[in-house]
Amino acid sequence: MPIDVSPRSASTDAAAKASVGRLDYEVADLSLAEAGRHQIRLAENEMPGLMALREEFGPTQPLQGARIAGSLHMTVQTAVLIETLVALGAQVRWASCNIFSTQDEAAAAVVVGPNGTVEAPAGVPVFAWKGETLEEYWRLADRIFDWTAEGADGPNLILDDGGDATLLVHKGVEFENSGAVPDPSAGSGTGDTASAEYRVVLDTLRASLARDPQRFTRIAKDLIGVTEETTTGVHRLYELSAKGELLFPAINVNDSVTKSKFDNIYGIRHSLPDGINRATDVLIGGKVAFVAGYGDVGKGAAEALRGQGARVIVGEIDPICALQAAMDGYQVARLDDVIGEVDIVITGTGNTRVVTVEHLLGLKHLAIVGNVGHFDDEIDMAGLEALPGVEKVEIKPQVHEWRLPNGRSVLVLSEGRLLNLGNATGHPSFVMSASFANQVLAQIELFTRRAQYPTGVYTLPKTLDEKVARLHLSALGAQLTELTPEQAAYLGVPVEGPYKLDHYRY
Amino acid sequence: MPIDVSPRSASTDAAAKASVGRLDYEVADLSLAEAGRHQIRLAENEMPGLMALREEFGPTQPLQGARIAGSLHMTVQTAVLIETLVALGAQVRWASCNIFSTQDEAAAAVVVGPNGTVEAPAGVPVFAWKGETLEEYWRLADRIFDWTAEGADGPNLILDDGGDATLLVHKGVEFENSGAVPDPSAGSGTGDTASAEYRVVLDTLRASLARDPQRFTRIAKDLIGVTEETTTGVHRLYELSAKGELLFPAINVNDSVTKSKFDNIYGIRHSLPDGINRATDVLIGGKVAFVAGYGDVGKGAAEALRGQGARVIVGEIDPICALQAAMDGYQVARLDDVIGEVDIVITGTGNTRVVTVEHLLGLKHLAIVGNVGHFDDEIDMAGLEALPGVEKVEIKPQVHEWRLPNGRSVLVLSEGRLLNLGNATGHPSFVMSASFANQVLAQIELFTRRAQYPTGVYTLPKTLDEKVARLHLSALGAQLTELTPEQAAYLGVPVEGPYKLDHYRY
Amino acid sequence: MPIDVSPRSASTDAAAKASVGRLDYEVADLSLAEAGRHQIRLAENEMPGLMALREEFGPTQPLQGARIAGSLHMTVQTAVLIETLVALGAQVRWASCNIFSTQDEAAAAVVVGPNGTVEAPAGVPVFAWKGETLEEYWRLADRIFDWTAEGADGPNLILDDGGDATLLVHKGVEFENSGAVPDPSAGSGTGDTASAEYRVVLDTLRASLARDPQRFTRIAKDLIGVTEETTTGVHRLYELSAKGELLFPAINVNDSVTKSKFDNIYGIRHSLPDGINRATDVLIGGKVAFVAGYGDVGKGAAEALRGQGARVIVGEIDPICALQAAMDGYQVARLDDVIGEVDIVITGTGNTRVVTVEHLLGLKHLAIVGNVGHFDDEIDMAGLEALPGVEKVEIKPQVHEWRLPNGRSVLVLSEGRLLNLGNATGHPSFVMSASFANQVLAQIELFTRRAQYPTGVYTLPKTLDEKVARLHLSALGAQLTELTPEQAAYLGVPVEGPYKLDHYRY
Amino acid sequence: MPIDVSPRSASTDAAAKASVGRLDYEVADLSLAEAGRHQIRLAENEMPGLMALREEFGPTQPLQGARIAGSLHMTVQTAVLIETLVALGAQVRWASCNIFSTQDEAAAAVVVGPNGTVEAPAGVPVFAWKGETLEEYWRLADRIFDWTAEGADGPNLILDDGGDATLLVHKGVEFENSGAVPDPSAGSGTGDTASAEYRVVLDTLRASLARDPQRFTRIAKDLIGVTEETTTGVHRLYELSAKGELLFPAINVNDSVTKSKFDNIYGIRHSLPDGINRATDVLIGGKVAFVAGYGDVGKGAAEALRGQGARVIVGEIDPICALQAAMDGYQVARLDDVIGEVDIVITGTGNTRVVTVEHLLGLKHLAIVGNVGHFDDEIDMAGLEALPGVEKVEIKPQVHEWRLPNGRSVLVLSEGRLLNLGNATGHPSFVMSASFANQVLAQIELFTRRAQYPTGVYTLPKTLDEKVARLHLSALGAQLTELTPEQAAYLGVPVEGPYKLDHYRY
Repeated sequence: MPIDVSPRSASTDAAAKASVGRLDYEVADLSLAEAGRHQIRLAENEMPGLMALREEFGPTQPLQGARIAGSLHMTVQTAVLIETLVALGAQVRWASCNIFSTQDEAAAAVVVGPNGTVEAPAGVPVFAWKGETLEEYWRLADRIFDWTAEGADGPNLILDDGGDATLLVHKGVEFENSGAVPDPSAGSGTGDTASAEYRVVLDTLRASLARDPQRFTRIAKDLIGVTEETTTGVHRLYELSAKGELLFPAINVNDSVTKSKFDNIYGIRHSLPDGINRATDVLIGGKVAFVAGYGDVGKGAAEALRGQGARVIVGEIDPICALQAAMDGYQVARLDDVIGEVDIVITGTGNTRVVTVEHLLGLKHLAIVGNVGHFDDEIDMAGLEALPGVEKVEIKPQVHEWRLPNGRSVLVLSEGRLLNLGNATGHPSFVMSASFANQVLAQIELFTRRAQYPTGVYTLPKTLDEKVARLHLSALGAQLTELTPEQAAYLGVPVEGPYKLDHYRY
Repeated sequence: MPIDVSPRSASTDAAAKASVGRLDYEVADLSLAEAGRHQIRLAENEMPGLMALREEFGPTQPLQGARIAGSLHMTVQTAVLIETLVALGAQVRWASCNIFSTQDEAAAAVVVGPNGTVEAPAGVPVFAWKGETLEEYWRLADRIFDWTAEGADGPNLILDDGGDATLLVHKGVEFENSGAVPDPSAGSGTGDTASAEYRVVLDTLRASLARDPQRFTRIAKDLIGVTEETTTGVHRLYELSAKGELLFPAINVNDSVTKSKFDNIYGIRHSLPDGINRATDVLIGGKVAFVAGYGDVGKGAAEALRGQGARVIVGEIDPICALQAAMDGYQVARLDDVIGEVDIVITGTGNTRVVTVEHLLGLKHLAIVGNVGHFDDEIDMAGLEALPGVEKVEIKPQVHEWRLPNGRSVLVLSEGRLLNLGNATGHPSFVMSASFANQVLAQIELFTRRAQYPTGVYTLPKTLDEKVARLHLSALGAQLTELTPEQAAYLGVPVEGPYKLDHYRY
Repeated sequence: MPIDVSPRSASTDAAAKASVGRLDYEVADLSLAEAGRHQIRLAENEMPGLMALREEFGPTQPLQGARIAGSLHMTVQTAVLIETLVALGAQVRWASCNIFSTQDEAAAAVVVGPNGTVEAPAGVPVFAWKGETLEEYWRLADRIFDWTAEGADGPNLILDDGGDATLLVHKGVEFENSGAVPDPSAGSGTGDTASAEYRVVLDTLRASLARDPQRFTRIAKDLIGVTEETTTGVHRLYELSAKGELLFPAINVNDSVTKSKFDNIYGIRHSLPDGINRATDVLIGGKVAFVAGYGDVGKGAAEALRGQGARVIVGEIDPICALQAAMDGYQVARLDDVIGEVDIVITGTGNTRVVTVEHLLGLKHLAIVGNVGHFDDEIDMAGLEALPGVEKVEIKPQVHEWRLPNGRSVLVLSEGRLLNLGNATGHPSFVMSASFANQVLAQIELFTRRAQYPTGVYTLPKTLDEKVARLHLSALGAQLTELTPEQAAYLGVPVEGPYKLDHYRY
Repeated sequence: MPIDVSPRSASTDAAAKASVGRLDYEVADLSLAEAGRHQIRLAENEMPGLMALREEFGPTQPLQGARIAGSLHMTVQTAVLIETLVALGAQVRWASCNIFSTQDEAAAAVVVGPNGTVEAPAGVPVFAWKGETLEEYWRLADRIFDWTAEGADGPNLILDDGGDATLLVHKGVEFENSGAVPDPSAGSGTGDTASAEYRVVLDTLRASLARDPQRFTRIAKDLIGVTEETTTGVHRLYELSAKGELLFPAINVNDSVTKSKFDNIYGIRHSLPDGINRATDVLIGGKVAFVAGYGDVGKGAAEALRGQGARVIVGEIDPICALQAAMDGYQVARLDDVIGEVDIVITGTGNTRVVTVEHLLGLKHLAIVGNVGHFDDEIDMAGLEALPGVEKVEIKPQVHEWRLPNGRSVLVLSEGRLLNLGNATGHPSFVMSASFANQVLAQIELFTRRAQYPTGVYTLPKTLDEKVARLHLSALGAQLTELTPEQAAYLGVPVEGPYKLDHYRY
């Protein structure tokens, strides 16, 4: 069974690495795996949702027979997710959904398995390392669909984050149907980054077709469905569904309350100040912070900064969210109008060019600029790079001083990408436990009740959302009150829930 | 034109009062009206949503031709609502939806009209006073359907709060169809309070049928629709709709974000401590407060109490809300487990018997118990009254010390009914401005685009919800950011909104 | 034994009233006393410090032989203080220290005594009613020095608030020494308010000299000392001491931590929003509030307003306090620079003309202006009254709309005097329990250890300050940790305290 | 001019290193210095107090002639302090006051000087590196008294942190007076750590006496005084003064409001969550945190944890602080009573064995335990190490899992030493700017107004404390209000301050 994990893979010959069998696994990697195992053990303590699911479903093995192709950041938390899926009976193959996000020690530990040896019962094949090239990334993504080692044709479930695994299947089927992968050089020829990556996707699929012209067609037919983690992935799924091109059912995990509200608000509340602190060591207290966007991310960001003694000003385009910000006691202003008094600018909008070059030029000397929203274009980094006379000085990794032609500087964190990931360690385990418990329940739901889910996009039933919350309460010492039958009848809800209408906003 | 307003109406012969013409209006009442006019003027300053609608729609008079029968607490804020409807062209007749909630000076001022005289252009007929009997209440409710003075058969729109006006029409049509009003004494004979009130409804309708056996049938046919303010009323409408018995379209104003989130969270945050303070003058700081329920009401209550320095413990049955409370830093516990350390118990659940007699017996001496939820049975007042040996001592109106057989006492506010209404003055004007701007927009929507609304229950389109928010921003000095066309295209939303999907939770 | 209590005293012939004996006390007053007794009983539950002192010192009667002349707002809380002094063995005579602050029912209840009858053991002579004239005020102040009914020449202790009782003795001695009371008309003839009141003081003392030319000289010789409640009174004492004119020792109760920090911060945090709410019913959430001064009063005010969702801007002259405000996340600005965006202005500075007429003219229409600082000149009310074209409209008692010549209005609370007293009910009982426990301990300290206190001004030893705190913990369910002997030795403090150096700032 | 700086010094022959001259400075160190210079430049932006003092006093050079021996953590912030002293005219020699706290790049940058070369004008001799032995530490401390390279006998000012430099002079004089350094082996022979260090002190002084038997006697005579940074050092000074053994005047910088309140509250509020996050990546939100001590450190800690959504329980021995905690809304409890529900334990007491082995055994599995108080014995680390069956596993540097015999583990941060230093980077620059501005002003005060300071311990005059605050306001955009002459007269304070009495508590 070939594996791909090693931090050195990236810097040595990764292609050769891909053919290394697990039994050849080096001592150095075992010690890496051991370090990862430590962290997994600590993380398990912070992921009560997943551990409770192991306890509840371990005996009945509801995922017995499930073959899961996973594409999601290969972190310590994901290691706990993977091992939970295995504990429930599933076979799993895994890749990361981002070229930088893999924690190598976590990958190594999952490959080696909980027993700490490569002997049986061994771990799970992981195809990921920190710092992949785009070519490596898509080649590794392809590997999670190759189940010959497990004696199968392909997976019957996808667990996706951002939709790349789902994309590969859909594009694969499309090209297998048309009999050929299009020539990217014949395309629009724009030559931008997206096209560059798309060319790699096409190369990857061209190689697949060459090997087996019906491979993804067979895989798609076998697939019971996909569970999708993020806004972006969900967006793609709804688009496919709307165009009638969706090939199998999908569960939108992203919009569970215990996912979207929890990781956006509480995850950001934790990881935003963490990222700013690790990047700059600048006192947040007393400073003026501008938070662009007062959705869930912005709400968490504003609360965190206020909790550290900053004065927070909120920017919003949506009058409802703006009114919420005002009622929560924040000044609501346009960045243009307050730019000269701001010490820290944080974007969390999902929008583009929220912070323009003009804004950057208007800031105080050494103001801090960072993004916890979605893509790296919330801050106009391209515009900044193109600014004549600008100079970029690395203070330390992921922290750059941009010396502006006006004599002032700004500190940009993580090159405008997610600073809570780039300068800190992203969402903490407890938050991911809620997200991932939704994932596990969604996988179980699709696998065991597949007949209920014709092709389409679904959110998890509220009862499962409530279940995820329930699994995290006792770890916090929270005691739930139970309805009496009389009270349940009065409210017209079952004693055991669900308790709210679907449109309830929490 | 007969009017019904006067605080003395209740204590004198209300039936005779009903035939008093406006020109006979007494001097005392004019000074009452003058006091109300002062308050209305102050309230207008706090109701920027309604005032902006007057400015925007005053010139085009979109409600010209509308005949609105309103049933909603006849307060100062409602006076501003009524006068806004009139300013937009409507004719209006009004009753209160609660026997206690009328502010007589507000009613008087509306009757007299903004000019301060009873000469033309005079005010609006209001049929309401503080402290109506049930018989008076339903007779007055009937009066808002009597439009002979205005030269019409009946209203063409209802603006309802709790659904009593809507009920009267539906029951009226039902009995007119069957040709007779049933005899309540032939009924189940349970003799409880609800039945007592229902008997009054039947009497009211029996008198109507005697006068005109097709009256409500004609009225229902003329009705373009109803806009409903509250959870309870909305619940009734969905039930009618589900049974196919709904007679005209209905707009659910309650579930606009700018209504439900705003008055529940921010209204309660304001009026809960206000009510406790006026009732007891007890220092909230340092005290242990138990908040039952962490929905919007509970969230506002907990924030208010923490903001005054109390230590707040939250009780919840819903694990998602419970987890939110924990993540917000509150202890989550069962009332049973902490009863002995609690100084203040506040219910905001919409549930029944959340605070039982056993709880009351377990509290500290002179603990404060109050309700800001829905009905007065959140606290088991009936059980308390029935407790052998209990003694009720009035400390002041709406504040009672209940001396318990165990030698301790509890202070119960507003007899277990809404303490923010009973001990304070309810939601402040600014909050009601948001609710009522939704009402006005819903009335305009139904009246001007009636073809879009076949019989059924609708929520307001998000664009109007956003509009209501927008109207309240500048009064708070909040400056909205505007999307560039490039950004709008990137997000796939119009520059002017709406900005969010319908299921967005805020 | 003559008494002076009755709300009707003020409106009838007060001089005659002064000769009414207790046994003639009218039925109406007994019912007033009964109402007061109810409130006293509720207040006792909120004054654990005083109740604990009754329990601790009741058996040993440390104040046996003490004759206390008290001059302090005659409220329900003061009633609990008076009855605590009596419970510890003291004889007491009482006047108010403010012409408006007496709660008549509290006064009545104290006169009648806890048994609810005027039979022995009866209550305490109280010389106070709500709404005294200045002449009445000083005549009543004189009465607390007249102990013939108790068979004594005068008091041996003063409990003072603001220093009026102390002033009377010092001025009395001064004039008795010089043999005559000066003629005020021969004075500077400025004719201002202060002089008007001083003229009354001189009249009062002239009458005293006429009756008994050595009265205050004898009283001063008998006096063991005074305990003083407030900043103003303490200031006078330090001045007297510095000039060598202080006649007896004084304990500065005001500067106990459990007094100054507690009533200023926590008392204001409670009573400021309470006052604004009762006065205006305006939503505080979302509004821009300017708090002038960030001492203890300002800290409590800012926290309260932020806790209600306001955006708070702080004005400060002291850079240390200003930096504290900034570090606590507040904008720090000059009122001049932000006047046009402010909805609520609150002063808490102890300074004069902090809000000028120019400020009032610059505010938004119907902005709210109030004071929780010290005197009524923090807002330039005199300047406002003198403004040509201004119009004052009473909205309700203690709430006035001032219509300005620029067409806008401002709402001024309590005529610029303390709004938390004028529009609400002042500091709650729990806060006063801490203040008054300091008073009781100070009285015991002076009376039982008088030899330790030569003439001079003292603060209470830290051990008593800590004791006051200790007495309030269990009512809040707070559990104190106890030092081990090893830890105490390590820190170099006694196990039972005091724990901090005198200059520790808390 | 010999220098001692290099990270490699520690691992190579440090004694030899001491004789390396600056012109031999290696390239590697220059690049280290360059990295330090970057950080100094960023820190300068966050230290407005020091930069303002450079601007104000640079022209007049008030420290011309001052020879300052500094002993204080050799960090980036201290580099800004040193260069400020130099900018004001002083000559400086520097050592660290802690064997671990030196940031080598900061030391290197200071040695090299702001010009970035070792050519004149060159930098300041620094004798410090990260990870000194005790022998190295005291030898380096001795070097700051050796001013032969500057052509002087010794310093005329000490800037001290913890009192080690002051100790060396006092002990040196004592032994020079007695003619010999005592033999530690003849002592009590307890052999504990303190004695071990004291033995090194004696060895250091013995070598000094051997070289020059009157060296410290001459130095002490020349010394104008010392300015001391910390509680511990101040405590030693008051003891020396009380015993009449203090040799020169001392200014207690620690008790300036802008020092003690600012770095304890706002520094800890920043660095505590930073340390926990970097150490553990555990979500703080929703967790139960126990904060031992509610002095300034505990107040900052509790606020930070609550600001992250934790539920905070406070432990206190002082009833006044305990009551403050309760009034701030925290549960106040004994650790013993709540140990089983606590996720995070933080000590900030200055006391010993606040967290005992019994407590550690009672905690939840993998609870986090850390100290931000004073010494490392707030947590009984010695007891934990001695616990039979305990196992210590390093998770990463400064983070250890202690596996307890009961099967549970605890995570101990920084071995029980200050976690905000060990796991994060200590107080941020802005906070140190306030502390260090006090230091600079104290040095100027002693040097320029030495006649005003006979031998004794002084705090800085309030006017300088206010000045420090003033220097930090504009960087935060805070606008101070200025008293009018009329207002200043009313308050009886100068327009320019100071504004408060000395005992004012802030």
